[in-house]
Amino acid sequence: MLSSSHVIEIVQTGVEAAAVIAFAMSGLMAAARKQLDVVGAFVVAGLTAFGGGTLRDILLDRRPFFWVEHHAWLWVLLALCSAAMLFMSSRHIEPTERAMQWPDALGLGLFTATGTQLALAQDMPLLVAVLLGVVTATFGGVLRDIVCNEIPSLFRDRRPYAVCAFIGGWVAVGAHAAGAAELTVLLLAAVVTSALRMGSLWLGFTLPGWRQ
Amino acid sequence: MLSSSHVIEIVQTGVEAAAVIAFAMSGLMAAARKQLDVVGAFVVAGLTAFGGGTLRDILLDRRPFFWVEHHAWLWVLLALCSAAMLFMSSRHIEPTERAMQWPDALGLGLFTATGTQLALAQDMPLLVAVLLGVVTATFGGVLRDIVCNEIPSLFRDRRPYAVCAFIGGWVAVGAHAAGAAELTVLLLAAVVTSALRMGSLWLGFTLPGWRQ
Amino acid sequence: MLSSSHVIEIVQTGVEAAAVIAFAMSGLMAAARKQLDVVGAFVVAGLTAFGGGTLRDILLDRRPFFWVEHHAWLWVLLALCSAAMLFMSSRHIEPTERAMQWPDALGLGLFTATGTQLALAQDMPLLVAVLLGVVTATFGGVLRDIVCNEIPSLFRDRRPYAVCAFIGGWVAVGAHAAGAAELTVLLLAAVVTSALRMGSLWLGFTLPGWRQ
Repeated sequence: MLSSSHVIEIVQTGVEAAAVIAFAMSGLMAAARKQLDVVGAFVVAGLTAFGGGTLRDILLDRRPFFWVEHHAWLWVLLALCSAAMLFMSSRHIEPTERAMQWPDALGLGLFTATGTQLALAQDMPLLVAVLLGVVTATFGGVLRDIVCNEIPSLFRDRRPYAVCAFIGGWVAVGAHAAGAAELTVLLLAAVVTSALRMGSLWLGFTLPGWRQ
Repeated sequence: MLSSSHVIEIVQTGVEAAAVIAFAMSGLMAAARKQLDVVGAFVVAGLTAFGGGTLRDILLDRRPFFWVEHHAWLWVLLALCSAAMLFMSSRHIEPTERAMQWPDALGLGLFTATGTQLALAQDMPLLVAVLLGVVTATFGGVLRDIVCNEIPSLFRDRRPYAVCAFIGGWVAVGAHAAGAAELTVLLLAAVVTSALRMGSLWLGFTLPGWRQ
Repeated sequence: MLSSSHVIEIVQTGVEAAAVIAFAMSGLMAAARKQLDVVGAFVVAGLTAFGGGTLRDILLDRRPFFWVEHHAWLWVLLALCSAAMLFMSSRHIEPTERAMQWPDALGLGLFTATGTQLALAQDMPLLVAVLLGVVTATFGGVLRDIVCNEIPSLFRDRRPYAVCAFIGGWVAVGAHAAGAAELTVLLLAAVVTSALRMGSLWLGFTLPGWRQ
C-alpha cells in the first residue's frame, strides 16, 4: 500500500512536470508565432520554463540551479522542441495555448509557493520573499517576451497573473508566520494562487489601467 | 544643536530619497506612455530605480541588495505606482519628466559615486571601478527601455549622461588615489557628475555621432 | 629558439585577440546600423565581446570576470569604438561584416571550447557543460540583438551557429571522458567547432524551420 507521503511526492512530481511542460509549451508557441528556428525554439522554451527560477536563484545567490540539478529536464525540452518542429503547424498554436491555461495555472501556484518559501528560508523580509515568489512564477514569461521583441504581456494585458501570485505569496507568509508545517505552507499558497488564477480566467477579471 | 555628521546624514538621506523617487518616476512615465497595467508600472519603476545597483551587486557578487536591506522602499514604490495609476493622466507625463530632470541629475551623481566607491573597496582595476559606477547610475534606465521594447535612450540620444558619470567616476578614482577621506571622495564625485549633467542639459551639449 | 609551449601560447593569444576583436566589431556594426552614439557603441561592442562569458561566469558563480582580469581589453574596446566613430561610414558596414566572418568562426570555436571546459572542471552534468559552452560563444550576440531591439538572429536566421558550438561542445565532453590532456580537449573542440561553422558558411547549410 502507498503511504501518504508517497502519494504527496507523486502528486508534487506530477504537478511539477505538468507545470514545466506548460511553461515550455508557452515558450514554444511564442517561438512558432515568430517563426524562430530550432535553436530559438529551444532557448525560448527553456527561458520560459526555467528563467524565473534561475533569476530567483541568482538574486538569492543559490546554486545549483533547477536545470542543473534536474538536468534530465533539458533532454525533455530538446525532445519537446524537436517534436514541435516536426509535427506542429500554425493552426495548432491557438488550441495548444488554450489547453495549456490549466497546467500553466498549476505552475503559477507551484512556483509562487516554492519561490516564496525558499526566500523565507533565507530570512528575507516578507515583501521581498513574496516578490521573489512572484518573480519565480512569472519572469520566465517576461524573458520569453523580451527575447521575442515584445513588451511582456505580464505588464500590459491587465489579466490577473502576477497579482494572483502576489496574493498567494502573502498566504505563504501568513501560514509560515502562524507556524504551519512546510508542506502545509506550500500546499496552501499553491492552491490559493492557482484557484485565483483559474477563477479570474473563468470570470474574465481585469486589472485597472491608467486614467484617460 | 545638530552636529555636522548629523547634517551630512540628513542631506545624504534626502538626496538618496529624491534620487530613488526620480528614477522610479522616470520608470512610471515610461509605463504610462506604453499604457502598461499596474503590474508593469510597478516592475518598470522598480527596475529603473534599483536595476543599476542590483546589476552592479550581481557583478561584484555583493549581497544583500539595496532593496532587500532597505525594503521599506518597495512599499514606497507600491504607493507611488498606486497613486500614479489613480491620479495621473497622459497630459501629466511631460511636465513630470521635466520636473524630474534635476533630482535625476542628483541621482546620477550619487549612484555613480557610491558605485565607483564600492568597486574600489573591492580592489577592482580603476577602469572597471569607473564603469561599475556608470552601470550603477545608468543601467536602471537601460533595463526600463529594454522592457518597454525600445532601444535604450542612453545609447542613442547623444545627450551626455553616461559620459558625465564616466568623468565623475574618474574624479572618485583620483580623489581615492590622492588619499582623500571616503566622504570627500563620495561628495566630490557626486557633485562633479551632477554638475556636469546639469550644465550639459543647460547648454544643450551633444555627443558626436557617426560620420555620414 | 622558441619552445613548442611558447608557440602554443602565442597562437592562443593571437586567436583570442582575433576573436574578441571580431565579436566587438560585430557589436560595432550593429551599433552603426542603429546609429547609436558613442556610449551605445561602446556598450554594445562590450556586450557582444564579453556578454557570453560574463553570463557563463554568473551562472557558474565564477569570479573575476574575463574583462576584470584582463581589463586592458576594455581600453582596446574604447580605442576601437573611437576609431570606428571617427573613420567608419555606412558603406564600410557590409564589407567589415564579411571580413569578420572568419575571425568570428575562430571565436565561436575558442569560446565554446573554453566554456565547456570550465563547466566540466566544475563537475557540471555533461549536457549542462555543453550548453554553457554554447552560451559562452553565442550569448554576446544575443544580448547585442536584444539591446538593439531585434529578435536575436541566432534564434531565427537558420544558419548553423549555436548548432556548431553544440557539436563542438560534445567533442570536448568526449575527449575529456577519454582522458585527453586539457590542451588537446581545447584544441579539438575549438577546431571542430570553427571548421563546422566555416564549412556550413561555405556550403550554405540551413537549419529546418517550422512546418507550414
